[in-house]
Amino acid sequence: MKPTFNKNLRFLVVGLGLMGGSYAYALSKRGFQVYAIDIQPKTIAYAKKSGLIKDGAVMDVDLIRQADVILFGLYPNAMVDWIKTYQEYMRPNTLISDVAGVKHRIVETIQSFLRDDVEFIASHPMAGKEVSGVEHANDEMFQQANFIITPTEKNSEAAIAFMKQFAKELDFANISILSCEKHDEMIGYVSQLTHVIAISLMNANDDPDLVHYTGDSFRDLTRIARINENLWTELFFLNKENLMKEIDDFTDALLKLKQTLKEEDTDTLKQMMILSTQRRKLFDKPKKR
Amino acid sequence: MKPTFNKNLRFLVVGLGLMGGSYAYALSKRGFQVYAIDIQPKTIAYAKKSGLIKDGAVMDVDLIRQADVILFGLYPNAMVDWIKTYQEYMRPNTLISDVAGVKHRIVETIQSFLRDDVEFIASHPMAGKEVSGVEHANDEMFQQANFIITPTEKNSEAAIAFMKQFAKELDFANISILSCEKHDEMIGYVSQLTHVIAISLMNANDDPDLVHYTGDSFRDLTRIARINENLWTELFFLNKENLMKEIDDFTDALLKLKQTLKEEDTDTLKQMMILSTQRRKLFDKPKKR
Repeated sequence: MKPTFNKNLRFLVVGLGLMGGSYAYALSKRGFQVYAIDIQPKTIAYAKKSGLIKDGAVMDVDLIRQADVILFGLYPNAMVDWIKTYQEYMRPNTLISDVAGVKHRIVETIQSFLRDDVEFIASHPMAGKEVSGVEHANDEMFQQANFIITPTEKNSEAAIAFMKQFAKELDFANISILSCEKHDEMIGYVSQLTHVIAISLMNANDDPDLVHYTGDSFRDLTRIARINENLWTELFFLNKENLMKEIDDFTDALLKLKQTLKEEDTDTLKQMMILSTQRRKLFDKPKKR
Repeated sequence: MKPTFNKNLRFLVVGLGLMGGSYAYALSKRGFQVYAIDIQPKTIAYAKKSGLIKDGAVMDVDLIRQADVILFGLYPNAMVDWIKTYQEYMRPNTLISDVAGVKHRIVETIQSFLRDDVEFIASHPMAGKEVSGVEHANDEMFQQANFIITPTEKNSEAAIAFMKQFAKELDFANISILSCEKHDEMIGYVSQLTHVIAISLMNANDDPDLVHYTGDSFRDLTRIARINENLWTELFFLNKENLMKEIDDFTDALLKLKQTLKEEDTDTLKQMMILSTQRRKLFDKPKKR
């Protein structure tokens, strides 16, 4: 029987980075039993000392065997490898979820080789910080964040319901259900393209004096140019078709705008500004659905 | 004799928008005599009632005649027309400055026809808000802002010194001197290109559902997509050569990044991310020079 959401659940967090660590923090704070596996002994030691977890190890198959729910805070490809290697130790009816920022390829891959008596229900907590590591673990960032569950035809209603309760318990602001495909399209635009833009903008000009003249708008726009190159290279490649399409659509809009400058086409330029103003206004509304 | 900076100076603000109004507010608060001219009778009435100005009018040539310093809060082209029409009423040695976000063309034009006994010393207070209008006038936004003076060979050292004192008096965080050409290049990148990007990004996708999934990074990046189309069309056209070049450089970086996706060129993509991270870090340093 699949686990139902209750306080006696035993969670195993694999990968105690910012997200995995924050899950551990949030769950322990709410009275759940939380254990962890992480590649770094000192990370485990820190998490145990700080009360994020009851116990943990670099590897201990008993921790896998005893878990009702396994939450992965690993990079996507590392997660695929981990599950492939260690799924044999999972107990029947274990529920698995993740935090990966892209879904389609990863979920398809995992569900293709996963044991039939274990269920992987993918989810994406759209929270984050510019810092990484377990020492920044905290659950405050969940309170303004979207939690997206991306089930496939291989998932059960029970697992979807479980993840909804999980997200509610952790106080996420919004909970949505999206297909993996729709999720990755959306993320290609609202997250990945914006990072591509910030990276490109910082790569396009090397005048160090500019720092003295920047205003808030430039700072806001480039804040996300500080980026973990290992994680994001992986995320970009895992969603490259969507991201390349988004870059193309954006480039088209950019070149259309450039053309209005060249031709001093006041009407078209103003229309683009009026449209951007109208669309952006929608985003100022309260996020609660 | 040119005015020296002292508390008995009589200022005339022409155009009581957000910037002109904030100048009036800041100067009156500091005990200067401030008068104003604005196209809207109700704006004058509001400014007088709120203590931003001593008096004002839609047009009163005596206000021009009696001013030691005239500060323009008008749109650039409107300012050129205004000076052309009313310069005959200015007293000898009047000092004129402005708030325009682009300089080269405007300054060259004004200085080409301006009376020899009146001096136009251009400046750019790099402050602003997403709102406009005199009712939002305030001087708090100056305290974190850059104040840039853009003198030409036609300007006197006395006028440059005057504007420095003016900016100090109003508590600007940094005061810089730049040529008009260098100013417009810089502004093409740090301000205009960022607005072009935000506008293009909002024009590139029309899925209204996206609002439910946006994170802070998208909100930050598109905040400036809410834009006054009349002012910014004018600013873009007045700096179109620089801005088109910046769009080209940015597009090159964007297409280079897209190519790394196409070819799954991990090394180049990571290098771009490392470079953007390094460069962006500089912008987190305190702004004070």
